[in-house]
This record gives sequence, structure tokens and C-alpha cells, in this order.
Amino acid sequence: MSKDSAPDWIAVDWGTTNLRVFAMQGATVCKRAQSEDGMGRLAAAEFEPALRSLVGDWLKDGNLPVIACGMVGSRQGWVEAPYRSVPCTPLAEALTAAPTTNGLDVRVVSGLSQSSPADVMRGEETQIAGFLQLNPGWDGVLCLPGTHTKWVLLSAGEVISFQTFMSGELFALISEKSVLRHSVAEDGWDSAAFETAINDAMSHPERLAARLFGLRANNLLHQTTAPITRATLSGLLIGSELAAARAYWLGQKIAILGTGKQARAYQSALRPQGVEAMLVDTERATLAGLTAAYRNTKALT
Amino acid sequence: MSKDSAPDWIAVDWGTTNLRVFAMQGATVCKRAQSEDGMGRLAAAEFEPALRSLVGDWLKDGNLPVIACGMVGSRQGWVEAPYRSVPCTPLAEALTAAPTTNGLDVRVVSGLSQSSPADVMRGEETQIAGFLQLNPGWDGVLCLPGTHTKWVLLSAGEVISFQTFMSGELFALISEKSVLRHSVAEDGWDSAAFETAINDAMSHPERLAARLFGLRANNLLHQTTAPITRATLSGLLIGSELAAARAYWLGQKIAILGTGKQARAYQSALRPQGVEAMLVDTERATLAGLTAAYRNTKALT
Repeated sequence: MSKDSAPDWIAVDWGTTNLRVFAMQGATVCKRAQSEDGMGRLAAAEFEPALRSLVGDWLKDGNLPVIACGMVGSRQGWVEAPYRSVPCTPLAEALTAAPTTNGLDVRVVSGLSQSSPADVMRGEETQIAGFLQLNPGWDGVLCLPGTHTKWVLLSAGEVISFQTFMSGELFALISEKSVLRHSVAEDGWDSAAFETAINDAMSHPERLAARLFGLRANNLLHQTTAPITRATLSGLLIGSELAAARAYWLGQKIAILGTGKQARAYQSALRPQGVEAMLVDTERATLAGLTAAYRNTKALT
Repeated sequence: MSKDSAPDWIAVDWGTTNLRVFAMQGATVCKRAQSEDGMGRLAAAEFEPALRSLVGDWLKDGNLPVIACGMVGSRQGWVEAPYRSVPCTPLAEALTAAPTTNGLDVRVVSGLSQSSPADVMRGEETQIAGFLQLNPGWDGVLCLPGTHTKWVLLSAGEVISFQTFMSGELFALISEKSVLRHSVAEDGWDSAAFETAINDAMSHPERLAARLFGLRANNLLHQTTAPITRATLSGLLIGSELAAARAYWLGQKIAILGTGKQARAYQSALRPQGVEAMLVDTERATLAGLTAAYRNTKALT
């Protein structure tokens, strides 16, 4: 590694199922690596070894500061980084130090909480901070699709309020573990069916549990194809979510974090509602947020 | 076995996860047995051995006719007993013979289907027939709580229409497999929380996916207890179902099939809506239905 590209810190995105690490020089990625040592499968003493197994090489000329975000900071994680209560900026100036050996300096970003309605996030606050770094002065609503999709109201650089929906987890459970697994293929998509289901669910969100079994029955009785069933299931869940999240998107400026299938599904669901949402690269936002956290830390020391 | 109590036929309730058999003399149970050889775990050639392993003793003086209901009659079951389309009586006169060896006579009850909205049932039609045997001339709505709860409109001895909800399966998936599994205990119940959740969900059924994650957040932030979370989850799901099934219970005479926790939960959810539902013993209804099917068969031969 030439002197020029020598990293000066390490960015870590540590979720429940994955661990992603980046050797950084300022805001620039020098190297990257990842493993499936997510927080969900690690006991307290296993975090440092899991991290060192990925970044060991980058530390051979000496320790580098490590900034981590995500579920690594939960009570079951490496160290509990206490929630900060909204309204507040997405990032605190101070991070929480994880217990390490040999002088390794690991700091973990705090999640955000909201007292009423009760809600929490861990990891998304870093993406929100990164998004604001990349779009200074942006006011509006950020939608972060995922297992637990978040809708976040931003104003003057602060998170004002947010709401989490389990639609992504419900989609996975229903399509993989319920009786519908026989009718939903792993792939395939019917856009017209998705649009119909969005409209259906937004008009009659209470019919969800009945419409779900109807998908199975339509497959049995009318040979509805797997791509139609898959898109309809997704549309019903996202449509119900849009019905409940109306206050977050109606008449608002919207950005969606993500550029993949799920993000594009939200984008196309919002379009007929007259909302043209911008898509944002998730990794770029995460790294911009971790970089901001790293700079805050340096400014403090 | 004395001559008096010698069975003359065998009743079989064969669902996805369980196999229950009854040695019958007319409408009276002489003996019973059960196993976990549900239809879900058996290949085509395994049905007869699974049945014989439970009823072999009862057949040692000669074959007895066997009448079976449930998923055993599905396409993946022993023999496909074609759906009958509503409106129709719950039982056909003719049953479908399963392929057997050594002259064993096994007949399977057909399920019911509804073309629009698409819906199906297998097994419940027998319970409905039994309920009508036990309550001749009963007109009204029968609610059959289960993994897939059915609401069934009965008039003049016929099934007019029905609607299936996946609420039971959603409760199992969410409480056992989702992020909420950390917050929902296996047992415990808070009646006040259940009632609040029913009201909440009936007023705002679209908020379901948001309220679900709220349960997790309330547990994390406000230490909501597991019995409250469990009862709230159940209340949200049943309340959403009641909102969608309104046409089935509003101003109707209602009977609920079942006497256990789930049936009582539906009963108590309906009470504040001014509906006093009668609870009905499931096994009694199933056996009365199978007995009616057996008598139809005898009348034909």
C-alpha cells in the first residue's frame, strides 16, 4: 500500500446479519471487506475477533481509529450506545467506546428513540446524517426501506419524528414461511398486479389478512402465477404502509434511501400519488455518515 | 371388546399437522387415537400405513368403512377430493374413494370453494355440517378460529359465502419468528391490553404494520411486559380482522367453533360490539359432521 493511499481510519457498518468494513482515507474508500459475522450471531467476547479477522491486515502498521454504526451498539451488541431522543441531530458529537484489547480504539454511534409513539432506530441515523452531508440544507421526508422500513421527517438538520413499519419483515415471513410460500416464487414481478394491489390496500387497508389468504386461493382456483402473487403481496404490504404513513409523504419532498428493487417498488408506489421521490445510494450515505462521525470524534480530541 | 361396543365405522380428522382417528358405533365414540402424521409430512404412499398404524387393531376382525375429512383430501394429500362451489350444502352425498390395499374402504370429504372473492376450505365444511346437525335450522354466521380463521354465512342449511383470514398464522409467525419474538412470551395475557388493541385496530386497521414495530419499541423503551405485548399483538390482528369481516358479524347471529383461548378471544372481542357469540365444541361438531357423511354414504350403497 503506497503512502498516498494509506488509510487513516476504519468505517464499520455492523448490522444484525452482516459486517462490512472500509479502510478510509478521509472520505475516500481505500479497501473494503465483509463477512456474515452480524451482531445477531456474536456473543459479547466475539465482536473484537470478528472485526480483527477482517481488518487485521490494515492494522499491521499500527492501530487506526474505528467508527461503527448499526446493531453493534444495541444491548445485545458489543457495547450499548444509548439511544438519543428525537427531536435531535442524527449524530451526537460523542460516541460510545467499545471494550477492546491492545489499545484498539472503537467508537459506536448511538441510535435514536422516540417516546410516543414509541420507536427506535440503529444504523439509519448514520445514513440520515450522511444523506444530510450529501444534501446540505435538505428539508423533507426520508424513506429508508428495509426489513423495518423507516419514514423520517427532517427539518433544519434535525430528525423531528419517525415511524417504523414491519412490512419488509412481514413480506419475508409471509412469502417464505406461511402457506403462501407455495404460491410465491423467489423471483418474478408483475408491475400491473403491484399497482392494483397498492390501490386496493390504500383504499381498504383493513382487508390485508383476508387478501393474503385470497392470494393462496386465487392460485389454487384460478392458477394465478407466482410473479403476480409475489407483486400483489408486496403491493398489499406497501400499500397498507402508505395508507398509514400518509402524513409522512402527502405533500412532502421525499427521498428514498436505496437504489435496488425494494427502493424502486416504493418509488413506483408513490408515483400515482403524485409524489416523485429521489433515490439515494445507501452505501454512499452510510459512509458519508460514518465520515461525519469520525470528523466529530477528531474535533473533540 | 364386547359385541355391544363393537365399532361399525372409523372417523378420521386428518389435517396438515395431526391425524386423529375415532372408532365409532353410529354417532358414538368407542375408542380414539392420534398421531403427528399430518398430511404435511406424508408422501402419497405413506397415508395408508400412517392410518393403519393407528387403526390396525380396530380392523383385526375385518375391514370397517373409514370416513376422512381435512387436508388429506387436498392435491398433496392421499386423494384429491374436488372442491364443491358455494352456495351449496356443506356435505356432498358422494365422497371420494382413496386408493387402498386389501379392500380397505376409505372415503374423503370434499372441501368447498368460492370463486369470487377466491377462497377455499378443507375440513371446516365437515365441522359446519356437524354444527348444523347439532343445531338444525340454524341460520346465521359461524366463525371458525384457527391458523386460517373462516367466517361462514349459513342459510337454510347451505353455505352461502365465506371468507378466510390469515390472522392466526400471522400471530404465530410474528410472535415466534419476527423481531417481536424477543418481546412476546409464550404465555401470559392482559385482558385490558387486548381490549384496547381491538378498539385501536378496528378504528385504524391501516396502522397494523406500524403498531407491530411499536410493540417492540415499547418493550425496549418503556419496558412493556410480555403479557401486554402478547395480548396487544393478538388484539391488533383480531381487531383488523373484525374491521374487515364487519359484514359477517354486524347484526348477525354468531356461533364460534371452539372453546379454547383463541375462540374465547374472538368472543370477548365481539362482546363490546354488541355481539354475544355462542361457543361450540369443535370435536363434537367434527364427529357429527363425519357421522352425517358416513350416513350419506350408507344411504347411497
